[in-house]
Amino acid sequence: MAKVKLGIIGLGQQGGAYASFIKEGRVGNMEIGAICDTDPEKKKRANEEYPEVPFYDNYIDMMESGDVDAIVTCVPHYLHPEMGIEALKRDIHPLLEKPAGVYTKQVKEINEFAATKPELTYAIMFNQRTNELYQKVKEIIDNGEIGAIRRTNWIITTWWRPQGYYDAGSWRATWDGEGGGVLVNQAPHQIDLLQWICGMPEKVYTKAQYGYQRNIPVEDDVTTVFDYGNGATGVFITCTHDIMGTDRLEIHGDKGKIVVDDSKKVTVKRLNTPESEMSDSMSMQDVMKLFQGEGPGSIYQEEVLEFESVWGGQHVAVLENFAANILDGTPLIAPGSDGINGVELANAMHLSSWLNKEISLPINEEQYLEELTKLRQQEK
Amino acid sequence: MAKVKLGIIGLGQQGGAYASFIKEGRVGNMEIGAICDTDPEKKKRANEEYPEVPFYDNYIDMMESGDVDAIVTCVPHYLHPEMGIEALKRDIHPLLEKPAGVYTKQVKEINEFAATKPELTYAIMFNQRTNELYQKVKEIIDNGEIGAIRRTNWIITTWWRPQGYYDAGSWRATWDGEGGGVLVNQAPHQIDLLQWICGMPEKVYTKAQYGYQRNIPVEDDVTTVFDYGNGATGVFITCTHDIMGTDRLEIHGDKGKIVVDDSKKVTVKRLNTPESEMSDSMSMQDVMKLFQGEGPGSIYQEEVLEFESVWGGQHVAVLENFAANILDGTPLIAPGSDGINGVELANAMHLSSWLNKEISLPINEEQYLEELTKLRQQEK
Repeated sequence: MAKVKLGIIGLGQQGGAYASFIKEGRVGNMEIGAICDTDPEKKKRANEEYPEVPFYDNYIDMMESGDVDAIVTCVPHYLHPEMGIEALKRDIHPLLEKPAGVYTKQVKEINEFAATKPELTYAIMFNQRTNELYQKVKEIIDNGEIGAIRRTNWIITTWWRPQGYYDAGSWRATWDGEGGGVLVNQAPHQIDLLQWICGMPEKVYTKAQYGYQRNIPVEDDVTTVFDYGNGATGVFITCTHDIMGTDRLEIHGDKGKIVVDDSKKVTVKRLNTPESEMSDSMSMQDVMKLFQGEGPGSIYQEEVLEFESVWGGQHVAVLENFAANILDGTPLIAPGSDGINGVELANAMHLSSWLNKEISLPINEEQYLEELTKLRQQEK
Repeated sequence: MAKVKLGIIGLGQQGGAYASFIKEGRVGNMEIGAICDTDPEKKKRANEEYPEVPFYDNYIDMMESGDVDAIVTCVPHYLHPEMGIEALKRDIHPLLEKPAGVYTKQVKEINEFAATKPELTYAIMFNQRTNELYQKVKEIIDNGEIGAIRRTNWIITTWWRPQGYYDAGSWRATWDGEGGGVLVNQAPHQIDLLQWICGMPEKVYTKAQYGYQRNIPVEDDVTTVFDYGNGATGVFITCTHDIMGTDRLEIHGDKGKIVVDDSKKVTVKRLNTPESEMSDSMSMQDVMKLFQGEGPGSIYQEEVLEFESVWGGQHVAVLENFAANILDGTPLIAPGSDGINGVELANAMHLSSWLNKEISLPINEEQYLEELTKLRQQEK
């Protein structure tokens, strides 16, 4: 095939955006194979905007029609894994919207099934991985340029949402509709980036506020402490009620420090000598001299990198990379199996806050599902 | 009396500095009444540098000599409360070095006793409270200019200390000598400032690393989560192993945000409309317009205030204020009874990390003392 025929499941905000990217020719190796939605209004819209594209109101029918080589799941999070599995069963390549699912148990299922079909392309829409800024940060860490990580700290409170946003869809910010709040809907990008760049923690402690500043049953404010297991720790803070939100990531290592401001500016300080060597060789007199005389600037090299802010603009790159992997095996930027890490972290944060204690990873997934099910039932 | 005659207990680094400030005439309303130290070397030094000043090797003798109106306790932290009590008993005004003590039980004792002697001046060396920057931040908060606090976040990792610093004194960074590490020796200033400006939390969760990057039995790395009891939360991070340390305080409120960088620059953003009203009145379309068109800058007024960095330079101001309170009742900047809050917070952080769970304030002080005593005994 010359172009991958994509079946778009769900013509909402994301599905609509992908359809228009492809229609506008922005994804060179992809065309719209079919569109599927259960909502008659969406059928009307599809007929108007994409009159030549086949429309289905059942995604199984679409996958069995021969119209599509691949699908993308722009539907409520709970459905991502099962739709992915149904696609894989029919030798259709699935691209999951983020998050990969709501709870790890369902994500494990698709990951295990996908492992039996290695010839198929299974990917996830972690569009932020195509952001050059975070690719650069990952490269610096991976190269060991700032040494072993001692501390990570991300305040990412730029996800402001007014009450009207939540009121606009009855499924929004509910346990039964989404399976959570900011951790499941807005912050999965940063949760993925953090684990992609800095690795997974061993333990998680979370203080989450449910319906703190918004009239929703799920979390709108989260403070998490990570324990990476070797003394290194991290903090992850997010919320949806800070209209002047902060986006500041700091990574402190044995040999340097990276500070990312507003996902635009990266300040890298590389120590001339590893910190532990300085500690071992310096007297307090040397220290006073250092801070009063030469200034600490003399002990490190600073580099400042500025990037264009491209939040939200990289979906096209993921679509293209997904199609390229199908067509010629180009390595995936975001393999589908990676999606479980973010889900596991979000689950761990919920579970820790519900139990009010630090919990170890991997989490007890049965316990998580039980607690989540209770919350879903309470809503009905 | 025209000038307060100060008895300096302990002619180490701090005591020596105070003696020279007074000798140089930098504290106009104070003179050195006497100096006390148990170390013969210090006696020699005192005789050389302050030949006209009476010297004692027993602080009780000094207090009963008639040479002093007031004392300052530049001795190991454990001794601050008992020396203060002995002073009060003799109608001598005590100025405690920070921290007020190592554990709340002993600090309560002096506070209760001091309350029976309201005619005496009882103060504590929280010199950072005279820092104009933090006075300004407190004023903004107290005036309600940024509304009710929703989140506090202080990364204060500028307390770098090399191994040589710890090796220079056998009492340093031990449970028996100091009763802790960075929380007891370096960070008490910020712990006091935070509670002075933002109030005390109701609950504390701490992850502390003991001897993580330094060969010491006490904590050299701390991550704390505060729960202020009304949904508001906070994070406090400190360590002694970051040679390119960060000092960044962020306070997020209903009506604005304050960010303090490097204890030098204060950025205040005041919302034109309280956040909750914006949430209630805005649609998602308004939001898109806001962020893409006018930019969020139109919703708030920004003010940037720059201050000279004066870390360590304000001891003179506290000495002067202490003497002024004795002489004419000038209000105290740092009443001695305030010292318990910082000690309680540091104790809560230790206890939470030892028990690995969130704990409520006031802490169980018997349990704290029991655990601390165990650690002291293990060292012997």
